[in-house]
Amino acid sequence: MSATSFLSDFHEVAAIGATPNQGVDRQAATAEDRLTREWFRAFAQHRGWEVRVDGIGNQFALVEFEPGAPHILLGSHLDSQPLGGRFDGAYGVIAALHAADRLVERVTAGEPRPRLNLAVVNWFNEEGGRFPPSIMGSSVFAGLMDEQRMLEVRDLAGVSVREALGEIGYLGTDARPEIAGYAEIHIEQGRILERESMPIGAVDFSWYTQKLDIEVLGEQSHTGATAMADRHDALVGAAKVIVKVHEVTGHFEPEALVSSVGQLTLEPNSPIVVARRVHLVADLRAADKEVVLAARARLLAEIAEIGDAAGLTINVRDFDVRDNQHYPEAGIALAEQVATELGLGARRIRTMAGHDSVAMNRIAPTVMLFIPSVDGVSHCEREFSRDEDMVAGVDMLTEVAWRMLGGALSEQGLIREAMAQS
Amino acid sequence: MSATSFLSDFHEVAAIGATPNQGVDRQAATAEDRLTREWFRAFAQHRGWEVRVDGIGNQFALVEFEPGAPHILLGSHLDSQPLGGRFDGAYGVIAALHAADRLVERVTAGEPRPRLNLAVVNWFNEEGGRFPPSIMGSSVFAGLMDEQRMLEVRDLAGVSVREALGEIGYLGTDARPEIAGYAEIHIEQGRILERESMPIGAVDFSWYTQKLDIEVLGEQSHTGATAMADRHDALVGAAKVIVKVHEVTGHFEPEALVSSVGQLTLEPNSPIVVARRVHLVADLRAADKEVVLAARARLLAEIAEIGDAAGLTINVRDFDVRDNQHYPEAGIALAEQVATELGLGARRIRTMAGHDSVAMNRIAPTVMLFIPSVDGVSHCEREFSRDEDMVAGVDMLTEVAWRMLGGALSEQGLIREAMAQS
Repeated sequence: MSATSFLSDFHEVAAIGATPNQGVDRQAATAEDRLTREWFRAFAQHRGWEVRVDGIGNQFALVEFEPGAPHILLGSHLDSQPLGGRFDGAYGVIAALHAADRLVERVTAGEPRPRLNLAVVNWFNEEGGRFPPSIMGSSVFAGLMDEQRMLEVRDLAGVSVREALGEIGYLGTDARPEIAGYAEIHIEQGRILERESMPIGAVDFSWYTQKLDIEVLGEQSHTGATAMADRHDALVGAAKVIVKVHEVTGHFEPEALVSSVGQLTLEPNSPIVVARRVHLVADLRAADKEVVLAARARLLAEIAEIGDAAGLTINVRDFDVRDNQHYPEAGIALAEQVATELGLGARRIRTMAGHDSVAMNRIAPTVMLFIPSVDGVSHCEREFSRDEDMVAGVDMLTEVAWRMLGGALSEQGLIREAMAQS
Repeated sequence: MSATSFLSDFHEVAAIGATPNQGVDRQAATAEDRLTREWFRAFAQHRGWEVRVDGIGNQFALVEFEPGAPHILLGSHLDSQPLGGRFDGAYGVIAALHAADRLVERVTAGEPRPRLNLAVVNWFNEEGGRFPPSIMGSSVFAGLMDEQRMLEVRDLAGVSVREALGEIGYLGTDARPEIAGYAEIHIEQGRILERESMPIGAVDFSWYTQKLDIEVLGEQSHTGATAMADRHDALVGAAKVIVKVHEVTGHFEPEALVSSVGQLTLEPNSPIVVARRVHLVADLRAADKEVVLAARARLLAEIAEIGDAAGLTINVRDFDVRDNQHYPEAGIALAEQVATELGLGARRIRTMAGHDSVAMNRIAPTVMLFIPSVDGVSHCEREFSRDEDMVAGVDMLTEVAWRMLGGALSEQGLIREAMAQS
């Protein structure tokens, strides 16, 4: 498979759910998500690869080299945020399909047949915009989330994951492939690689992240008739919390911490009623766990002060706490070695965002690669990565996968029991 | 009709759409709104009064004393805010029905037959929570809003006023009664009467009010991967605007100005996406128009600063501007005189909230009466007025209406042409 055919496929998939400003809108288990799945299925079936769908909608394409052996799994996700970018996730799946195709060609051309099998995955609902939490499909696969509970998660319209997957025909029953290793390539979504003109990032660990579920309870009253002194305005309290969540990063080193509020529900949301309740979700992330814990402690104190001063009850609950995940040193070294051999510059880099590889790293030797993002923006229509960087990334992934098929990471003693049996 | 029968009816209506904490939820043109309308219809039909419904869903009960003569109209509204109180609006409609019943009894008992007719109205959609703007039915009646445009207004679910009224069977075609005067009684929704132990307020004028439609435009990005310096977070900008709208009242005399934000929409509203757009509605009200204009000017400058500092575009648009409305001096004097004769204390009072009477005052001599609100709270379940205050108010409204039927306000030269012909 050539660079040209990869780019052609990438741009074909980018047209599915395309938005006016060159983004895509393909939230999990929507009609647009179904169309990308059909495209994935056609790619695999055209090459005679077996396609499977598991009970949480993860879609696999299986390439058999050695009957009964476990698989090296490559992939990412084809779903997107609402008005999201066309690179986040999709790049990694299409790169994985093309890497698999090139490896099949190598074997057909006479290179030694691997002792392991190969598979490509399109994980269900990495984004979590419609059905929180994010990284759902790979987390269920890795045993970190419960499948039945996740199937009951509902979107804001009340539709469950089970219903939505059934609706698009992707609530599967197929057996999950046994795996011996995982590799993923993704856009950086930051500007470090771009700043250093570095084509490849070898991810060494993920940031510590956590969310705060915050409920501000005031009292509903009339926006006109009620005196200011008699009000307990939940939205004013929530606004002060949002500003504090934003400003907390200023108490730490530059770029040591990111924070935000991305979701908010207001009740009753009437133009002439003072709000009785606001529910919001704050997101805190740092490379250093201690920084997140210090920011959290500061925010809890500030939120309590806001509540006391305004006569509001503010309930705060920790959730979606994700500890730093370190990728295996052998995988990072493998990526650095392959980059050198391919004549590509590479640096170690941390991931601020969550990825399916963070879940997979818990159960199998995992390699996570980044390519540069222009301007560092993501989850928006103007997200962009250059063709040449995408093409170099496919070369990297192909070669890393080939070494993993050859047992590169198992020789380092990182392979799990399943592979030891192969 | 006795005080007992009034209270019995009041508490019967309070059971329609009742909420767990003694409030009601009867938004305009819902199933609950329909039930109050059936109750109103039954009350009128039981007494042989003609019931009419006009093209915007206003419901009238007509009592004929003098065939062909115009009507003195009494009323308020039976709709409520979501999780609203059981007094706001409903008290005035039930008081008006009982006042009408007592006046019919007087005439039956031999008092002089009035030269004018009497009618009671249940105005459509005074609250505006589901279908903005508020005070819709009476404003259409008074020619201040266009009926066809209002029928096209849609709620957040996309249902139009026309569809919703049709659905509950209250999209009428009846002729509107010709009117010669209007009287309304309502809870104060503030704490002035309670503070002064004054049972009756005679409203002299309405506050100057206006809304600001505010759109904050940022850029969607990843809550984790995007560096803080690269973000243009629409929700942080909106939160700062909300705090400024709240704090602007501190630059004026205590209680001279009230302000709030009651409605907010966030896009895309995902826990892991920095918001690209927030739409919100701010509400400014003061007795003195100049105070609102000064607060608006200050806010516009502060909002511009917030936008410039954060690289956000913030669009602000004036709407729903309502000038001070002065009720006729003769009507205020009439209310004061009646209160004295009934042995009730009364004081002149301004209304911070909008009312149907503000619209009706534009086309007919209008009297607006208040009774005390406990703790001054309204638009919430714990809104409360005491039985004895409600009963005194019914006595007041009955006597004021009787004088108006006798031409009290027409003798003051305030009567409109239609009445002059009677």
